[in-house]
Amino acid sequence: MMLNKFYVDELIKTAITEDINYIDVSADYLIPENQRNDAYFVAKADGVLCGLDAAMRVFEILDDTFSYTAYKKDGDEVKKGEVIVDFSGKTACLLKGERTALNLIQHMSGIATMTHKAVELCKGTNAAVTDTRKTLPGLRAIQKYAVVCGGGKNHRYNLSDGAMLKDNHIDACGGIENAVKTLREKLGHMVKIEVETRNFDEVKEAVKAGADIIMLDNMTNEQMAECVKYIGGRAKTEASGNITLDNIADAAKTGVDIISLGALTHSVKAFDISMKMK
Amino acid sequence: MMLNKFYVDELIKTAITEDINYIDVSADYLIPENQRNDAYFVAKADGVLCGLDAAMRVFEILDDTFSYTAYKKDGDEVKKGEVIVDFSGKTACLLKGERTALNLIQHMSGIATMTHKAVELCKGTNAAVTDTRKTLPGLRAIQKYAVVCGGGKNHRYNLSDGAMLKDNHIDACGGIENAVKTLREKLGHMVKIEVETRNFDEVKEAVKAGADIIMLDNMTNEQMAECVKYIGGRAKTEASGNITLDNIADAAKTGVDIISLGALTHSVKAFDISMKMK
Amino acid sequence: MMLNKFYVDELIKTAITEDINYIDVSADYLIPENQRNDAYFVAKADGVLCGLDAAMRVFEILDDTFSYTAYKKDGDEVKKGEVIVDFSGKTACLLKGERTALNLIQHMSGIATMTHKAVELCKGTNAAVTDTRKTLPGLRAIQKYAVVCGGGKNHRYNLSDGAMLKDNHIDACGGIENAVKTLREKLGHMVKIEVETRNFDEVKEAVKAGADIIMLDNMTNEQMAECVKYIGGRAKTEASGNITLDNIADAAKTGVDIISLGALTHSVKAFDISMKMK
Amino acid sequence: MMLNKFYVDELIKTAITEDINYIDVSADYLIPENQRNDAYFVAKADGVLCGLDAAMRVFEILDDTFSYTAYKKDGDEVKKGEVIVDFSGKTACLLKGERTALNLIQHMSGIATMTHKAVELCKGTNAAVTDTRKTLPGLRAIQKYAVVCGGGKNHRYNLSDGAMLKDNHIDACGGIENAVKTLREKLGHMVKIEVETRNFDEVKEAVKAGADIIMLDNMTNEQMAECVKYIGGRAKTEASGNITLDNIADAAKTGVDIISLGALTHSVKAFDISMKMK
Amino acid sequence: MMLNKFYVDELIKTAITEDINYIDVSADYLIPENQRNDAYFVAKADGVLCGLDAAMRVFEILDDTFSYTAYKKDGDEVKKGEVIVDFSGKTACLLKGERTALNLIQHMSGIATMTHKAVELCKGTNAAVTDTRKTLPGLRAIQKYAVVCGGGKNHRYNLSDGAMLKDNHIDACGGIENAVKTLREKLGHMVKIEVETRNFDEVKEAVKAGADIIMLDNMTNEQMAECVKYIGGRAKTEASGNITLDNIADAAKTGVDIISLGALTHSVKAFDISMKMK
Amino acid sequence: MMLNKFYVDELIKTAITEDINYIDVSADYLIPENQRNDAYFVAKADGVLCGLDAAMRVFEILDDTFSYTAYKKDGDEVKKGEVIVDFSGKTACLLKGERTALNLIQHMSGIATMTHKAVELCKGTNAAVTDTRKTLPGLRAIQKYAVVCGGGKNHRYNLSDGAMLKDNHIDACGGIENAVKTLREKLGHMVKIEVETRNFDEVKEAVKAGADIIMLDNMTNEQMAECVKYIGGRAKTEASGNITLDNIADAAKTGVDIISLGALTHSVKAFDISMKMK
Repeated sequence: MMLNKFYVDELIKTAITEDINYIDVSADYLIPENQRNDAYFVAKADGVLCGLDAAMRVFEILDDTFSYTAYKKDGDEVKKGEVIVDFSGKTACLLKGERTALNLIQHMSGIATMTHKAVELCKGTNAAVTDTRKTLPGLRAIQKYAVVCGGGKNHRYNLSDGAMLKDNHIDACGGIENAVKTLREKLGHMVKIEVETRNFDEVKEAVKAGADIIMLDNMTNEQMAECVKYIGGRAKTEASGNITLDNIADAAKTGVDIISLGALTHSVKAFDISMKMK
Repeated sequence: MMLNKFYVDELIKTAITEDINYIDVSADYLIPENQRNDAYFVAKADGVLCGLDAAMRVFEILDDTFSYTAYKKDGDEVKKGEVIVDFSGKTACLLKGERTALNLIQHMSGIATMTHKAVELCKGTNAAVTDTRKTLPGLRAIQKYAVVCGGGKNHRYNLSDGAMLKDNHIDACGGIENAVKTLREKLGHMVKIEVETRNFDEVKEAVKAGADIIMLDNMTNEQMAECVKYIGGRAKTEASGNITLDNIADAAKTGVDIISLGALTHSVKAFDISMKMK
Repeated sequence: MMLNKFYVDELIKTAITEDINYIDVSADYLIPENQRNDAYFVAKADGVLCGLDAAMRVFEILDDTFSYTAYKKDGDEVKKGEVIVDFSGKTACLLKGERTALNLIQHMSGIATMTHKAVELCKGTNAAVTDTRKTLPGLRAIQKYAVVCGGGKNHRYNLSDGAMLKDNHIDACGGIENAVKTLREKLGHMVKIEVETRNFDEVKEAVKAGADIIMLDNMTNEQMAECVKYIGGRAKTEASGNITLDNIADAAKTGVDIISLGALTHSVKAFDISMKMK
Repeated sequence: MMLNKFYVDELIKTAITEDINYIDVSADYLIPENQRNDAYFVAKADGVLCGLDAAMRVFEILDDTFSYTAYKKDGDEVKKGEVIVDFSGKTACLLKGERTALNLIQHMSGIATMTHKAVELCKGTNAAVTDTRKTLPGLRAIQKYAVVCGGGKNHRYNLSDGAMLKDNHIDACGGIENAVKTLREKLGHMVKIEVETRNFDEVKEAVKAGADIIMLDNMTNEQMAECVKYIGGRAKTEASGNITLDNIADAAKTGVDIISLGALTHSVKAFDISMKMK
Repeated sequence: MMLNKFYVDELIKTAITEDINYIDVSADYLIPENQRNDAYFVAKADGVLCGLDAAMRVFEILDDTFSYTAYKKDGDEVKKGEVIVDFSGKTACLLKGERTALNLIQHMSGIATMTHKAVELCKGTNAAVTDTRKTLPGLRAIQKYAVVCGGGKNHRYNLSDGAMLKDNHIDACGGIENAVKTLREKLGHMVKIEVETRNFDEVKEAVKAGADIIMLDNMTNEQMAECVKYIGGRAKTEASGNITLDNIADAAKTGVDIISLGALTHSVKAFDISMKMK
Repeated sequence: MMLNKFYVDELIKTAITEDINYIDVSADYLIPENQRNDAYFVAKADGVLCGLDAAMRVFEILDDTFSYTAYKKDGDEVKKGEVIVDFSGKTACLLKGERTALNLIQHMSGIATMTHKAVELCKGTNAAVTDTRKTLPGLRAIQKYAVVCGGGKNHRYNLSDGAMLKDNHIDACGGIENAVKTLREKLGHMVKIEVETRNFDEVKEAVKAGADIIMLDNMTNEQMAECVKYIGGRAKTEASGNITLDNIADAAKTGVDIISLGALTHSVKAFDISMKMK
């Protein structure tokens, strides 16, 4: 698994503990402890799979005897009706882990699937699709990983590993140029500086300041195209603000390098996957 | 705040720690530590507010000097353009907390808003709208609380505080009647038993078994109406499976007592709220 | 193991960390790391076993080579002198885990044993024996589980999964009837309402209000019998307050459905089990 | 507060989180958020108070507006009917914290009270009363602190800060003398060595080996008196094994320096304290 | 405080809990709880201060009545004998927090002081001084922050926010060029790629591949100068390997952009600061 | 492993989580998941090994398929160029764990090596070398363990398991004699009392008071020799203050029983160990 194993295990612990205060009064009182079942996950729609490792890990932790055979892996496309994975374990453990495992895989696959759609809509252009910091508390790592599985790229992970200059930062320094200069003197060499701009004048200043990336915030496609042309490769360009699957293709055609979508992580539609007992 | 304060603080700690590995390279390097700002949250759409206490708590923890005046409270309706809360604090702290605070309030208000729509669509019927266990890892408490703020009700919180009998439980006991009987002998008196049914025969068995609640799973509205009539108050009835805002009004008219919607928590659309610096 | 595995492991981690700051200066300095021993647990009194899985888990975590053969399981009766489990592991690990394992199993078996006695004393009556929320910090799950192993039933787990109306709740609503009505409008359908009463008038009000359970608090057996008769099955009845093993049999004969004992969890007498090295 | 504040706060967090999954469905749904109450704790028996700071801390954390006036402090004797502390806070917070606060103070006062009885029974002799490592998981610190409040002394805290040589340690070194010698070479100068003995021969060996403390394990009072006389101050002596409040006075008269009682912490009887709302 | 407050508080909690298992047997048994003292920190050598906020936070958490007046702030130079901060609090709390506070401030100031020396030695050259990932478990954030306070810059924080290609990565892709190309396709736009080189041929490949930064690993100053000249600004250059305060000035003169020193964080010499009670 | 396994695992979790926010962008994007490598650790200097178990545990946790053959164990001397351990695992896991594993083993071996040097310098005298409480936050257990591996002994672990009387404690009781007496009445029998003295008069008082250990703080060797002679075995003696490897041999010759060095843990020089891929 790519993801930090400790993070995944802690997330599963949190989720299981939300779901089982002490015992599962249905399964623990009715299902014989050693009864076993075969089961499988099946896709209920077309999309991109993500979270299979994490979902299987739920059962592995609950049940030492659990085993599985996966037919897909994170990042693979799945079709409605396809069996994703066959597995076998103690019935009570399968029932206890079912909801937690599905909640994880459905959320992560939902993100990967929407990302994939966005990436497809940008095909043939220069534009990469990225996420934002508009993630859910505690879920940033799985959400950013799901964006990668869907074919997107990750924007900065957090406030420590990338600089983004907005109004307040710029005002505090008396202008874009001085802000970028001041920051460069303090920043390590691995960190890039992105400047948020809302009009052509700010773009010009940002170019002059030597920004690594220039965000074109809430501009029309015409404005963005003009800015991209002006910048001419002197900085990477990022389209941001109110971009959806409906208008992303047109935004991509403006020539921007990056299109960031908050909705990839803040408004996820779960991807439907079912667990079936045999 | 209704929510367990320890849980909210821990969630904020997790979120801030995701967002600030060690320092905010933009704010900490550019904004003078004691610079102050006034700011406010404004609704960018019509909906139901939820998460204001939690959002303000983010800033309170980061900044001992933070203060605010709220014009709305959790559960209130807000209109596009309305100012929700005015606040004042250290500029750097406002910038550090902005994303975490907004991620919380937007997610929670998204849930409350969708719940409210569902509740409105059921008006004039007997049906209460409830959530499910289809929640996101670590977020169940804020999600269930948001459902309440939107006017919905909470289904069981977890596998420990409510019994739900599905195929596997029933098979292990040789039928609904025996399953309910076996369980009653072990369950505490505060815990109710719900039985999942998929057809009229199972409904009849469940009534005979003395189930407290009978779930009518993936039935047509006609089937549900027939079952509700047959049950005649001998158990509560719950409509479940593929119910959306588009079809909930019709489902409600079948006379069921409860309609549960997984989408309230597994497919949340963030409610747009902005933070503006003055 | 029925109990949430994450909870048990965390509890063991806490206990071992209390007991071993960094090294065991006796065992680690004197016992060769790979020396092995066979050992067993033996009951020093008659009672009901509980916590065997948790105790064995202590050694499993400390020692990858640990193995055991259990002759009893949680909930079984044991007699003074009976060997409960044979096991084998590294001597140093057995010594390091001994106290933690025994502290767990003795406390849990102490609860199960006292519960069993209470249940036996109620035989032939309608009364179920339940615990309360008078548990020790961090131990509620193992304590409530031990009550079940002893043949008792669990009262509500916490303030979220069951409603209990006392003076203050009732006063805030202007009476029992209004309190129950107000609460029903907000509560999910899986949650029951219990009303605490101290005299016959309150019982009448509670019945009228439609309480699910009526607690008869600190009443004499005569009063309880009268109330039970009056209620006549319209609500479950719970005897509560100063009931001990000495007077529980008489309380049970009043016809109440439930007798709750705080002492089951707040005043536990450890059940004596020894570990013997072979 | 003497106790490590972080530990106490973490214990309260654990306890409150056990008791409030997300909201208190009784208080949060019925009590207006800003309603206030005065309340007090009253002793329901005679004993020694312990845990007042911790109990008050529960309410302080839940309610920023909470304040109290204490009439007693940890370690003080209280009489049945005495008011221990008067306090004032939000009604809902008082109700939410009541059970957790009482569970703490009743358990800790229970330990202090029993310890005090044991200490009183040893008055006029040389014997100090100590606890053991037979504590409950996660509660060792509050339990050992309560023993001190009751007038007892603490035995070693854990396996790291005191050495205790039992059969297995001794066998691994070929005798008491060699075990003590080997250990002295490795142990830091702040750590004492206690040797467990079961007969006069072992006592002689332990004296010869230079043990700091000699435990007289499960001996008769006659045997203990003889050993104490023989040892003649060359080592401290500890009586251990099956000592209760019934026989401690006689054990103390044997001249031993220390009498350790597992029951002080493994078989605690809660001390009854009530919270009354005014 | 720049550092994430949650991280600092958690670190203090860990440190205090290491240092106070339950009570401070010296202070808690001998110092009256409300006795107060004035005290101060004084530098015992010349250096750069770091960790003052964190040290004061230790006392703030332990003692609600604690207050202080600081004469220096993180990043300031201090001279031997200078008073850094005056403070006042409960005597017992000052004694309990003293060691933890000093351990923090001495370690952080040690790093800042050594970093400052390295930076001074590079004055007049192009070279920035940076840290590495050779940090101590759990201390990365305070260590990286201390490097900044000493005038250095931070290298990548971790494996997620900067790419560094070494032998194994390169071999897996069949060469530097392909490795950089493959990675660019997957990496987000905020992340830079550094390539580790050990000879001139590898440097040429890295330039051709378009590496953002080229590490010159364990080269002689002559080799480094040659490489810097060849690269000619097409990538940033980093000197790495066995650079110490003794040879850093010469390394800096080779024209490299960055010099990274593992010793800044893996071999810290504590900076001597004393706490004096008045 | 001697060290509490839970502590070690938690420390590794913390370290890995510092180093891998979500994925390793170099290894995870470039190295095939199932590619394997053989590798080894080699000493780059002469010294004493410590932390091998902990380092191997890093890889074990990250990689279920990891295996190793160790040629040395904690406490063994190693020579420059010696291979310490051969191991085999997934390439990506080896790369992900390399830095964390090395950071641990280099720090711990650095402590063991310096301790060993100090111990060697005291050979032929009575003096044992001990650590202090001047440890790094969160690392006390591995640091104290490393001192033992280097042949040193541990001073008290924390403020709970040993009493050390300084000015403030003594002043609060009106003198050394009264302080020791007061404390003895409260302390358990396993805890020793050390008194800090700065001149001959204080030493005399400490002897009279019956201190178990007398610290000779910042005295000259002549003063220490005189004090040791005066004390004449009536208490253990500890030399403390500004002792380094340069002057420890002379301090040892004064006849003191213990020499404590803060630098063993507060100013650690990492011991150089490399990981080489085959």
